[in-house]
Amino acid sequence: MKSRIAVAILSTCGISLAFAGEPIQPIEAAVITEPGKVELGKKLFFEPRLSKSGFLSCNSCHNLALGGGDLLPTSIGHNWQQGPINAPTVLNAKYMLAQFWDGRAADLQEQAAGPIANPKEMALEHEVALDVLRSMPAYRAEFNAVYGDETISLDQVTDAIAKFEETLVTPDSRFDLWLKGDKQAITAYEQEGYELFKSSGCAGCHSGPAVGGTMYQKMGLREPFETDNPAQGRIDVTGKSYHRMVFKVPTLRNIDLTYPYFHDGSTYDLTEAVITMQKVQRGKDLPLEEAEKITAFLQTLTGKQPQIVMPILPPSNRNTPQPQPFVD
Amino acid sequence: MKSRIAVAILSTCGISLAFAGEPIQPIEAAVITEPGKVELGKKLFFEPRLSKSGFLSCNSCHNLALGGGDLLPTSIGHNWQQGPINAPTVLNAKYMLAQFWDGRAADLQEQAAGPIANPKEMALEHEVALDVLRSMPAYRAEFNAVYGDETISLDQVTDAIAKFEETLVTPDSRFDLWLKGDKQAITAYEQEGYELFKSSGCAGCHSGPAVGGTMYQKMGLREPFETDNPAQGRIDVTGKSYHRMVFKVPTLRNIDLTYPYFHDGSTYDLTEAVITMQKVQRGKDLPLEEAEKITAFLQTLTGKQPQIVMPILPPSNRNTPQPQPFVD
Ligand code: HEC
Ligand code: HEC
Ligand code: HEC
Ligand code: HEC
Ligand SMILES: [Ca+2]
Ligand SMILES: [Ca+2]
Repeated sequence: MKSRIAVAILSTCGISLAFAGEPIQPIEAAVITEPGKVELGKKLFFEPRLSKSGFLSCNSCHNLALGGGDLLPTSIGHNWQQGPINAPTVLNAKYMLAQFWDGRAADLQEQAAGPIANPKEMALEHEVALDVLRSMPAYRAEFNAVYGDETISLDQVTDAIAKFEETLVTPDSRFDLWLKGDKQAITAYEQEGYELFKSSGCAGCHSGPAVGGTMYQKMGLREPFETDNPAQGRIDVTGKSYHRMVFKVPTLRNIDLTYPYFHDGSTYDLTEAVITMQKVQRGKDLPLEEAEKITAFLQTLTGKQPQIVMPILPPSNRNTPQPQPFVD
Repeated sequence: MKSRIAVAILSTCGISLAFAGEPIQPIEAAVITEPGKVELGKKLFFEPRLSKSGFLSCNSCHNLALGGGDLLPTSIGHNWQQGPINAPTVLNAKYMLAQFWDGRAADLQEQAAGPIANPKEMALEHEVALDVLRSMPAYRAEFNAVYGDETISLDQVTDAIAKFEETLVTPDSRFDLWLKGDKQAITAYEQEGYELFKSSGCAGCHSGPAVGGTMYQKMGLREPFETDNPAQGRIDVTGKSYHRMVFKVPTLRNIDLTYPYFHDGSTYDLTEAVITMQKVQRGKDLPLEEAEKITAFLQTLTGKQPQIVMPILPPSNRNTPQPQPFVD
């Protein structure tokens, strides 16, 4: 009822809602209202001096040339330490109901504080990270211009990073063009894949603009998911035993770019991931040709990647804490 | 005589040669004649799948957000191995008479083959690197469009990278504006620094458009340079004992950005580097206020940094050799 009224209202405004009733909604282009924060956040996202080694930035593991991930089963952190879990893309992360596989960070700002100080990732104490930024007059001036304060706080750093990440959306995928009414934008084969995606129950969990990110679900609902990865999912956040192996349903936007798949990065093959899903979540064997059609549909979800002009970072000086690349 | 004729000719064309007779010439903006190769080369420069780990690209150690270097004394390579020597900037590298500290690569193309297969850097055999590129239809198509051939050879890969690097120049530094006649572009203090740079003999070695890169010279000409770094310089290339500790004179363009200094990265402090130079190359103690003036001049050599739009790299697929991040 509500949505019918919404359609009526939007139609009056001349907006066609070809996708009303579909489980997936189009990604909207970023509307930048605070360009200064976004620009500063971009610098910080690319800033390797926020790591102990001076070598790792957010972009090392969420490479914007590579769909916002690192394409590795698990990440490489400080001192080449092997990370515990697959790095999700930062693209469209603003659509997630919470951040991290287990949802332990409420939003992008809360999330951004994590990796800087995480000893397995960037491994730099927050106070040192802040001193690095404070040592550079150009950063002080930019924080002052944007936050009216040049003391530079962790809250400001993470706010700027989050504001930048909010712009990392991928509109205008072929599927979105189709959703919006361009019936030539996807092939009949791809459309069959979409119908199978819905009829096989995938869309029950993978829905919304990000085709995921709206709920937590058990991995291995019907049949156990075999993995060597020790991650236990949301139980680590809630302590509730029924949250064992419950993870955030990941976005399927740009899924063709964000291999390897699953929280353990156990397969590089999207069709294999599709078949595994049907098996462990629905207890059914998906015939190969159906899995291939679904794969073809999923590949239409690759959107326009953000065009990023690399920031030019200000130079360190005598007062800048030096990197410690070869200290554990 | 030749240069007087040149001045006469150029003056006739209405070009003022305010810098005739100066040891330093302005950096000219890049003129791109083969945009397809440059664009492809940019992709390859940012391509971490040219490394065994899938994690390191040229841009990891020659970060174009950081003046084309990594700001570390020595670099971090595959498996966090400590590199043997400081990573020079790739900015203005096309002006170097040869590549590497010891000049062992004749030009940018020859150089580019080195790091991919170097077990301490990207650690990927060339044949595997080529297979990675060949596995992706988008790369095959792009090589075909640019080189009329989709088999993809190492020569093509390194040619494209070199063509991209040739565009990485930094024109319009304040010093260049001054050289070209804008007498307000540098302060009187900075100009005094420039006069000292010439009168102290620095310009005898650091000259040309890149303020360096035109010759090899002994490090420690008058007094030995104390270092723990085992690099011996050009003797490794020529075998001649008088080439022991002879290195390419590095560019001083963007020197404010390319700390730490010297082939061993032993100091982050530019004024200290200036004093050391005068000591070991000229056997003299440079008074601190003179060193500070020279430093101020050197800081006017920071030019307009290349504006790089991050490339969007094509996705791997089933046929792409997988990265081996945690294998030595
Ligand atoms: C060493 C690799 C590494 C670095 C560096 C890194 N990340 Fe991550 N990132 C990961 C991994 C692995 C996860 C998943 C962790 C988890 O879910 O437990 C993750 C998760 C995230 C998420 C959550 C996405 C989602 O859908 O849940 C966001 C957002 C994010 N990172 C942003 C950042 C930012 C911002 C920085 C820099 C301040 C950063 N990352 C640095 C590896 C890295
Ligand atoms: C009951 C909920 C549920 C259903 C039904 C479901 N999924 Fe999932 N899906 C998930 C969860 C949760 C994950 C994350 C699992 C993990 O990695 O631990 C996931 C992961 C995936 C991934 C990997 C994403 C990534 O980035 O790693 C793909 C691809 C996928 N699902 C596709 C499908 C398809 C296709 C179907 C239908 C055949 C489907 N899913 C059905 C909940 C579900
Ligand atoms: C692991 C770090 C690392 C990686 C990755 C790396 N380099 Fe280097 N690069 C260095 C170091 C260290 C040197 C100096 C080596 C020497 O002189 O012996 C160097 C030297 C150079 C030089 C010579 C500059 C001069 O003035 O002599 C160029 C040009 C260059 N690299 C380009 C590249 C390209 C192109 C790639 C990718 C194909 C690349 N580098 C990958 C660390 C790296
Ligand atoms: C006889 C030749 C010679 C003279 C004279 C000379 N230099 Fe150098 N300069 C070099 C060489 C060779 C190096 C590289 C040494 C090394 O790192 O091993 C160098 C390195 C430098 C560096 C560090 C560059 C970098 O990127 O690491 C600076 C700064 C510098 N010189 C400034 C000066 C100044 C200022 C003077 C005058 C006071 C001067 N030089 C005089 C040959 C010379
Ligand atoms: Ca993934
Ligand atoms: Ca240096």
